[in-house]
Amino acid sequence: MVRDLSVPELVDRARQRQPRAVARLISLVEDASPRLREVAEALTPHTGRARVIGLTGAPGVGKSTTTSALVSAYRAQGQRVGVLAVDPSSPFSGGALLGDRVRMGEHAGDQDVFIRSMATRGHLGGLAWATPQALRVLDAAGFDVVLVETVGVGQSEVDVIKLADCAVVLLAPGMGDGIQAAKAGILEIADVFAVNKADRDGADATVRELKHAISLGRREIRGPSWRQPVVKTIASVAEGIDDLVTGIAEHRAWAEDHGEFAARRLARARAEVESIAVREVRSRFGEMRSDVLDRLAEAVRSGALDPYRAADDLIASIVDR
Amino acid sequence: MVRDLSVPELVDRARQRQPRAVARLISLVEDASPRLREVAEALTPHTGRARVIGLTGAPGVGKSTTTSALVSAYRAQGQRVGVLAVDPSSPFSGGALLGDRVRMGEHAGDQDVFIRSMATRGHLGGLAWATPQALRVLDAAGFDVVLVETVGVGQSEVDVIKLADCAVVLLAPGMGDGIQAAKAGILEIADVFAVNKADRDGADATVRELKHAISLGRREIRGPSWRQPVVKTIASVAEGIDDLVTGIAEHRAWAEDHGEFAARRLARARAEVESIAVREVRSRFGEMRSDVLDRLAEAVRSGALDPYRAADDLIASIVDR
Repeated sequence: MVRDLSVPELVDRARQRQPRAVARLISLVEDASPRLREVAEALTPHTGRARVIGLTGAPGVGKSTTTSALVSAYRAQGQRVGVLAVDPSSPFSGGALLGDRVRMGEHAGDQDVFIRSMATRGHLGGLAWATPQALRVLDAAGFDVVLVETVGVGQSEVDVIKLADCAVVLLAPGMGDGIQAAKAGILEIADVFAVNKADRDGADATVRELKHAISLGRREIRGPSWRQPVVKTIASVAEGIDDLVTGIAEHRAWAEDHGEFAARRLARARAEVESIAVREVRSRFGEMRSDVLDRLAEAVRSGALDPYRAADDLIASIVDR
Repeated sequence: MVRDLSVPELVDRARQRQPRAVARLISLVEDASPRLREVAEALTPHTGRARVIGLTGAPGVGKSTTTSALVSAYRAQGQRVGVLAVDPSSPFSGGALLGDRVRMGEHAGDQDVFIRSMATRGHLGGLAWATPQALRVLDAAGFDVVLVETVGVGQSEVDVIKLADCAVVLLAPGMGDGIQAAKAGILEIADVFAVNKADRDGADATVRELKHAISLGRREIRGPSWRQPVVKTIASVAEGIDDLVTGIAEHRAWAEDHGEFAARRLARARAEVESIAVREVRSRFGEMRSDVLDRLAEAVRSGALDPYRAADDLIASIVDR
């Protein structure tokens, strides 16, 4: 039924809080449907409202538990919450659907919570391309807060989190975290740190180590005046989640006062346009396989043409058509 | 000294078997030097001779040991051998240089062996872009055989191996290999299978399982007439390596007879041209950051423009300049 609806009808229903319409729009986006452009056009007037919060951290730090606890906290404030899980190891994603259902059971049946795992494998452009498109759907559908959860590995996943309005980096004690985080380039993108599983041995040491790293590096890390808070949480029992929500809210206030909020949103739009353009270029290259690209490839294979000149010709050809 | 040479001088010296000139050319290519185009142009007339053999497999199957044993086997045939290790877990690569030196000690001082680990992190386009460029250098420098070793994880690494003249997929007993390999999409790209560590329990079972999978799947896997051989090896003591060399040679003969060799080379040229073009497009996008892209991003951020129209404008702008 939902399948038969036109794009404007789907957008209307999504804005009327119908989860099936939201899901359908995200699918159109994820599958790079031919109606993609129509979807983007229909969504655009309704976007820009949602607060985007990114969560990342190594496997085992408790990202999904923290996400779930944050969903509850924002719901208690009366906010509508969307979740995009782009973490392949997440119980929300791919294989581990059982864990997903069990854990997110508390949000089941809540029409104001929408949870989606992103299936980005095999996509041209991958995460960097698909995530902003899905975000745009949730934003237009009127979700007040969108939580984006990724595992803290891989450049494209770091890029996704870096462009959230607020990037929350999770650590857990006893994983050599402080140093590992710094190595992964994750320290630099954090707006707020949460040391989860804070009832475990070594939690205070991790907090100290982090605070020390922040005090040393803060000028390099981000602007002159934002000092990332370090919050202790035990997400499994919702302890410290209020502090985390406060930390995120304080960052929001600071970011708005210091132009960082607008700058981040501009950077996100830039990354989105660029990733769409690169994907479009690739797809135009793909379409001309049988023709221009084959001729150029044959010239390169035979040694008649060097590959850089061939690439120039290829680029020129996609715009002339 | 080598640093001060012109590109034509470097190419001359590389063709005279001077390893420092070869290394310098690969560095120019890897670092995306401004002289990249000049390098590609100077190399092109000398390329097309080298046989490219790809090796891949999960960590722990013995890729580097097998590579080293193959180097010895081809050297015994009087062939000059280049190695490109694009496996981040390889002892040839990155961190584990000690293992590299120890293991490849047997080839040290052999002027007809050149080993290089690829540092592709952070590159626009990554492996898919850098590897063909480095291959081109070794090819022009007169190496008869180039072995490309990658870990069998990640789409770009599979793509690299798929485009070799011969793709060797390594397995080892007792890792649930047959099924794992099939899952990773590696079964489809193999021209030759080697079951390494064949003295271990389960080797025969792995061979049987593989042969069964091949007999079931062969029409889908590749053409009607090539049935991938399954070779048992113990690379650490060079056992079975002659069989592996024979399997690779038989594949070569079949591929030449059936047009597969030319088709693969054309596909490689196509992928190379495409990856250079995508990289070039990205870099043109990057250069216009402050200008066109910012204006478009602002329009998208404010909701005045949908991101697909913005991407169209961006693409148009890079070719008009």
